[in-house]
Parts: sequence; structure tokens; C-alpha cells
Amino acid sequence: MNMTDEISQKIESLGYTLPQVPAPIGSYLNCVRTGNQLHLSGGLPFVPEDKIQGVVPTVTSVEVAQMGAKLVVLNRLAVAKAELGSLDKITQVVSLSGFVNSASDFYDHPLVINAASDMLVEIFGDPGRHARIAVGVSALPLNASVEISMILEVED
Amino acid sequence: MNMTDEISQKIESLGYTLPQVPAPIGSYLNCVRTGNQLHLSGGLPFVPEDKIQGVVPTVTSVEVAQMGAKLVVLNRLAVAKAELGSLDKITQVVSLSGFVNSASDFYDHPLVINAASDMLVEIFGDPGRHARIAVGVSALPLNASVEISMILEVED
Amino acid sequence: MNMTDEISQKIESLGYTLPQVPAPIGSYLNCVRTGNQLHLSGGLPFVPEDKIQGVVPTVTSVEVAQMGAKLVVLNRLAVAKAELGSLDKITQVVSLSGFVNSASDFYDHPLVINAASDMLVEIFGDPGRHARIAVGVSALPLNASVEISMILEVED
Repeated sequence: MNMTDEISQKIESLGYTLPQVPAPIGSYLNCVRTGNQLHLSGGLPFVPEDKIQGVVPTVTSVEVAQMGAKLVVLNRLAVAKAELGSLDKITQVVSLSGFVNSASDFYDHPLVINAASDMLVEIFGDPGRHARIAVGVSALPLNASVEISMILEVED
Repeated sequence: MNMTDEISQKIESLGYTLPQVPAPIGSYLNCVRTGNQLHLSGGLPFVPEDKIQGVVPTVTSVEVAQMGAKLVVLNRLAVAKAELGSLDKITQVVSLSGFVNSASDFYDHPLVINAASDMLVEIFGDPGRHARIAVGVSALPLNASVEISMILEVED
Repeated sequence: MNMTDEISQKIESLGYTLPQVPAPIGSYLNCVRTGNQLHLSGGLPFVPEDKIQGVVPTVTSVEVAQMGAKLVVLNRLAVAKAELGSLDKITQVVSLSGFVNSASDFYDHPLVINAASDMLVEIFGDPGRHARIAVGVSALPLNASVEISMILEVED
């Protein structure tokens, strides 16, 4: 019996591509499952060809930071797929924590993190709708413009 | 059979009023339930008549930020009540994450967040006692002085 | 029947000592259990003889901040032991959130938090490997250099 993965097909049909699973930047795991929860580590907007770095909005524009937020969603889903076998096993995106590398007079963190939230709804439909924290921080690992972690609810 | 809501009565008897459920500031939900956990999004200290904004303690005093922390608790409980029907279904406040819009030489974040923690104990008694994170951040959405999220344990 | 605590013996054999359970700095609990999860409050790198305080790396070096991260792991495990009776009841470290009191041009937060992550693996082996968030923040309670919270999976 083959495992279905309609969500992966949906991602493709939307024109997105799941990247290779990124290596953790440090001595931790990309995700840990406990019961029906999959806790994903904070992901950064880095792909082999590009790193989205710098303070928003002075060094990195809101638009570029939004692209970064989408990159993180895709690399987090790559992590979940490697763990679960199929993204169809995700029954609900429970929560998303978004940290924006932020100038102290920048207040539009929700605009940046909306790009991630919207993408999750685009991909999963209603089960992609989640609780959320969005905050601005003074510095992120490797000068990333955004870091996003998630808790997913998954099938038994 | 009517659903009891002794906690809502307690809130009233303490002289507090639950506000209208605030609209999320972005494309996310105010809360998501998974199993016996209700994950509440980060709430801001905004009411229709007032917004508590600015850096603590240079723009906003500790005392005003504490009022803000209490406003957030009330709007988070309004969210929980809308979701659960009755606040009596909350069996335990599990954790609270408090982010304070903080000057870099301000170290009294616990004083600000204590206002939220104390209010939860005042309302719920022992089940209101929770694990907590309190940190200072360089900027918050819409220049809010404080953002608070919570995980609640709820009845089946 | 005595409760085993091989993990506590392992900690001793590694030359570490669990400190006294620290008092919470505010009106909250050191930890709350819900189902099979133990949520630990954010801990600070303070012992009676010493406090590791100040911005990394300008006031506090990466090396000292790493010592601080290890101190927090030990005081978090002291909290867990007081709650559970035995650290053998921990079946998995699920997630760790590390906040570094960070200069705005410091990008090596993972180096600081790795000290905590490595120590957990040293103590627990594979079940010590966890999902992780590491971010830099502009200020921490009592000017601590690092704050770390954790979610642990525990036996029934």
C-alpha cells in the first residue's frame, strides 16, 4: 500500500518546491514528536543559493523578509515530510512562533509573518490555520531576517 | 442543561470585564485546540478606547505596562470563553510567555509579567498557577508594550 | 521499592551537581505538568555564589555565556527532579527555547545554546536530543545573559 501525499502534490501544483532537509545549526534535532504533537525547531530562511539576512526593514525590506518567511515554511515542511513520510499525516498546524530581526522602530512584524501564515492556509486549507506569536528581536542566528518554529498535530 | 461558568462570575465579582473577542492582527486564529491543550495566540494590550504602546520603562511606565499585561489576560480569557463556551472547562493554566517591549537596560520584566500571573491566580486559584517565560524584546507588533501567549489545559 | 534515578547518578559521574531548586522570580511555578508533558519555566544562570549577567559578547564572553547555559540546564533538571521524584521518568527532551541577551551584531546564539543542548545529550543520550529555538533578545530579567525553557516528555 502506497502512502498518499496529497499535500505534497498540492505544494507542487502551487508552484512551490520542498527543499532538501536543512542540517540543524547546532547540536539539536529538526523536530521531535511527542504523542500527537510534532515540535519543529526554529528554521531560518537559508537555501544553498541564498541567505535572507539582516535587520527588517533597514537592511532587508518587508517584501524580502516575507519571501524569507515562505522559505522557512517550505523547509519546515521538508522536515515534517522526512519525519512523517507523508504530509497528509498532519491534521492541524497548532501554533507558529515568528521572530523577526527587527529595527526598534519597526512595528509591522505581523506583515512579515502573515506570509508564512497565508502559505500554510494555501497549502493545508483550514487545518493550516494556527495560533501565532510574532515578535521583533534584536538579533537572530547567522543574522537571519526571520526565524519560525511550529507545533503540528499529527495522526497516530 | 445550562453550562456553568463560575469563573466568569468570579471575574465579574472581582470587578473585571471580559472584552469583546479581538480580531487577530493577521492571517491566524486566536486559538487552536489540540487534545487537551488550548494554544492561545499572542495577545496585545489594546482595547477599542486605548492602546498601551511604547518601550518600557522610557515611554511606558512599569505600572502602565502592568495594566497592559492585565488587559491581555482579559482578552485571552475572552478568546478562551468564545472557544470553550465556559471558562470552567479550563483545568490548568499550563504556561505563559510574556514579551516586554524593553529598553536594553531594563531588567524588571518579571514585575510587568507578574501582573498577568497574579491576575490568573486571583481568577482561577491554584489551577491559575503556571510555568512562565519572561523576556525583553526590541520591538512588538503595532508598538505594543507587551505581548502574552498561553497554553491552557482544558476538559475533554 | 526504591525509585531508581540512574540519570542523577550519571550527572554525578560526569562531575556535575544539581543545585537547590531555585525560587521562581515572580508569581509563577517552576514547572507545570499536563498529560505527559512537563513545561519548565524559563531559568536563569544564577547560583547563590554567582550570577552570569550582561550582554553577549560585549560584557559576557561566549565562553562564559556557555557556562551560564549549562548552569540553567542543571537548575532546570533540579526542578524536574523535585517534581518527578526521579529524572529516570523523563522519556524525551521535547523542546528547548534559548534566549540570549545579545548585542545587535552578535549572530552566534547557536554556539551559546549548544552548550545546553550538548549537556542534555551527554546526560540523557539520544532522548536528550530535542527541537530548539535560539534567538537574541535586547534584555533579560535581572540582566541575565541567557534564559532557557524546556518541554519534557515524562512517563505516566
